[in-house]
Amino acid sequence: MDVDIGNALSSVASPGLSRDALEALDEQVAVAHERIEMGRANDEHGYAALNLPNTTDPETIRSAVDPVVDADTLITIGIGGSALGAATITDALADAGDGTETLYLDNVDPAWVNQRLEGLDLERTAINVVSRSGTTAETLANFLVVRDAFDAAGVDWTDRTVVTTGDSGPLIELAARHDLPAVTVPDGVPGRFSALSAVGMVAAAVCGNDLEALLAGARAEADTLTGSLFSCPAYAYGATTYALDARGVSMNAMMPYAESLETYAEWFAQLWAESLGKDDLGQTPVRALGVTDQHSQLQLYRAGPRDKLVTFVTPRNRPNRPIPDTDVEALSYLGNATLGGLLEAEFEATEASLAAAGRPNVRVELDRVDAYEIGGLLYGMEAACVLAGELYGVNAFNQPAVEWAKKATRGLLGGGDFEEAEAVAEKETLRIER
Amino acid sequence: MDVDIGNALSSVASPGLSRDALEALDEQVAVAHERIEMGRANDEHGYAALNLPNTTDPETIRSAVDPVVDADTLITIGIGGSALGAATITDALADAGDGTETLYLDNVDPAWVNQRLEGLDLERTAINVVSRSGTTAETLANFLVVRDAFDAAGVDWTDRTVVTTGDSGPLIELAARHDLPAVTVPDGVPGRFSALSAVGMVAAAVCGNDLEALLAGARAEADTLTGSLFSCPAYAYGATTYALDARGVSMNAMMPYAESLETYAEWFAQLWAESLGKDDLGQTPVRALGVTDQHSQLQLYRAGPRDKLVTFVTPRNRPNRPIPDTDVEALSYLGNATLGGLLEAEFEATEASLAAAGRPNVRVELDRVDAYEIGGLLYGMEAACVLAGELYGVNAFNQPAVEWAKKATRGLLGGGDFEEAEAVAEKETLRIER
Repeated sequence: MDVDIGNALSSVASPGLSRDALEALDEQVAVAHERIEMGRANDEHGYAALNLPNTTDPETIRSAVDPVVDADTLITIGIGGSALGAATITDALADAGDGTETLYLDNVDPAWVNQRLEGLDLERTAINVVSRSGTTAETLANFLVVRDAFDAAGVDWTDRTVVTTGDSGPLIELAARHDLPAVTVPDGVPGRFSALSAVGMVAAAVCGNDLEALLAGARAEADTLTGSLFSCPAYAYGATTYALDARGVSMNAMMPYAESLETYAEWFAQLWAESLGKDDLGQTPVRALGVTDQHSQLQLYRAGPRDKLVTFVTPRNRPNRPIPDTDVEALSYLGNATLGGLLEAEFEATEASLAAAGRPNVRVELDRVDAYEIGGLLYGMEAACVLAGELYGVNAFNQPAVEWAKKATRGLLGGGDFEEAEAVAEKETLRIER
Repeated sequence: MDVDIGNALSSVASPGLSRDALEALDEQVAVAHERIEMGRANDEHGYAALNLPNTTDPETIRSAVDPVVDADTLITIGIGGSALGAATITDALADAGDGTETLYLDNVDPAWVNQRLEGLDLERTAINVVSRSGTTAETLANFLVVRDAFDAAGVDWTDRTVVTTGDSGPLIELAARHDLPAVTVPDGVPGRFSALSAVGMVAAAVCGNDLEALLAGARAEADTLTGSLFSCPAYAYGATTYALDARGVSMNAMMPYAESLETYAEWFAQLWAESLGKDDLGQTPVRALGVTDQHSQLQLYRAGPRDKLVTFVTPRNRPNRPIPDTDVEALSYLGNATLGGLLEAEFEATEASLAAAGRPNVRVELDRVDAYEIGGLLYGMEAACVLAGELYGVNAFNQPAVEWAKKATRGLLGGGDFEEAEAVAEKETLRIER
């Protein structure tokens, strides 16, 4: 990825960063980089994720999925980091794949699960179940439901299932018992940093995406991690967001100008929120989509509080489609254009409209939406996030605040005694009813 | 809708609202209510939207769509308020409809448009084109593209098209020329407040949703607008969000616990952002989804900066599905549960986990996800937004900040001389390349 932070400079935006501030920031970046390099060298927890482009073996993944590679539909059962990386890749690269339909069961809403499972030809469907611990409640509940649906249809789910999990736990035992192909979630790689491991790439392999190109793109990005924000797009991005947050820019609206990157914005939102949202710190990621959200969010971004950065992600090349001519005079200017030209013009206009209003924004450019560039984008944003974690001084690799609700849920369902479950009953209420 | 603001009280949350603060706020609500009632009585611009439950005629809409009501697929071409209300309704009520597939062309990404139009049986497809002005660039470009696809397939698009537009402009002229069924965008109703007019209900009618129930639910909500936040769920919600924003809660994460309400969160985000995001004011809406985002955003919501409200929307009743028993001991507690029970437990646990961390949150309860309740929810949130606009002292019904980019786009495409287009070329750059 290439990054342009021109519209985040104080010559354009307020809040914005002066050249002097960037120079000072770059000294912090150099120190943080040393820490990151040490973490990578020692394969420390979390930092190990930045080594995935060299440690992930596409051949292992391809051979695991070989029994189901002919599936028409792939159901990936996972949640959070066990789903978003895979979905980001297969959604971005859907046009480059083999046409496998993907279905991500990342929620337990029964109406929705019922509806999604209806009408599937299970003989032609494969299951990709992903949970490092093998005990994630939502994932295992959905897996039990899906297995049951296969049983009810008389289709042997053990022929159609690939497991991605850790070295121990119920899922790996199940895989051993039923002789299921299983791949391992690598040690030291938190879910939200696992897109470039088997966690993200099993689905891509079933869909026929180019795993080698994903990793090569990530490696090219890794090669830029050289200790200065002025020579590393990932560090430029991470440092800019951090420095803007310190100046009151508490939100980061991720706004790709490509529908196929809508899921990427979801992935980014998890990466940013879970990694940096701790110790009362962290920028809130906001998911947006160009051009659609120009008609929904732009008014706020341009004229609301000066508390947000807009990050554009845009490919320099994309497929196109002409806009047919029209005899309606008011629209004749469209007839000279293409949909792609209209999209590009809207992107440039929106970017400039924020700049003209002094609102900070950053442009992330990809050459095109392909496996190489997506590998680079995912890696680059992970590196940006790790850098930001160093600058904030937080541990970007844990998520302690989600444990409370997990225990409460378990207690409420009769899975043990947890004081958190008791707290649920003590809710304060002030109800206003219709 | 019923609203519970107990977890936004200062006895629970920080920032939070004291009982005294609520009493003082209620005096402002009473004054704002008078203004709103006057606006409604005079059908003033914007306020007129709150009269739609009494002014929208379902029969007119149904008779307009009669020629295409048998369609298997409905393509709605619109953007922003011309798409989100309709999509919210048809997505929420998909299970209650007649099975018509819906496709919302609300973006001009050529790769995506190409892909969405591929493989459609156009003989069995209807077009719902929606633009008040009849000149919205994205909508008209897509309409020209879709017409062309019909022509190429030898299907007469004039037999398959319903137009929703204003009293003048290219679309109404086109409808007259080709004798297309056309319904009118009502005067004085901004797009984001138009879900309960033809703008939102043409698609619902084609999908076989219950228009009368949508309007009846909205009327029931309208009947609660009585001048006090303590007796009106909509005002309770609008006043609480405003008062929290004044105390530093600059974000509002809308988090439904129902997949079918995911689009509703998009609709809400437009309503909130475009209506209130002006004069450097306005709370930023953040779109979330339970339970999925517990594994993505909850860490930040619970342990990040104290700058956000989480709004839960949850139905008291929903379809269900049992979780099959398992012989895996660690998961046996799940086997006593249902997917719905798991979802409910996760909701209550998440709500309590935020309260335990002193983070303000509000619960919006629906009896169930049906037409009556959705009508109430949409109306209630619109009324909440209008109230918040009064409290902020902004005009909730305009969106002046989006004009700049529209002019720049037009200029870039050769549609006239606009100084905004020239500003695009003067972009400040600081590029960091891979």
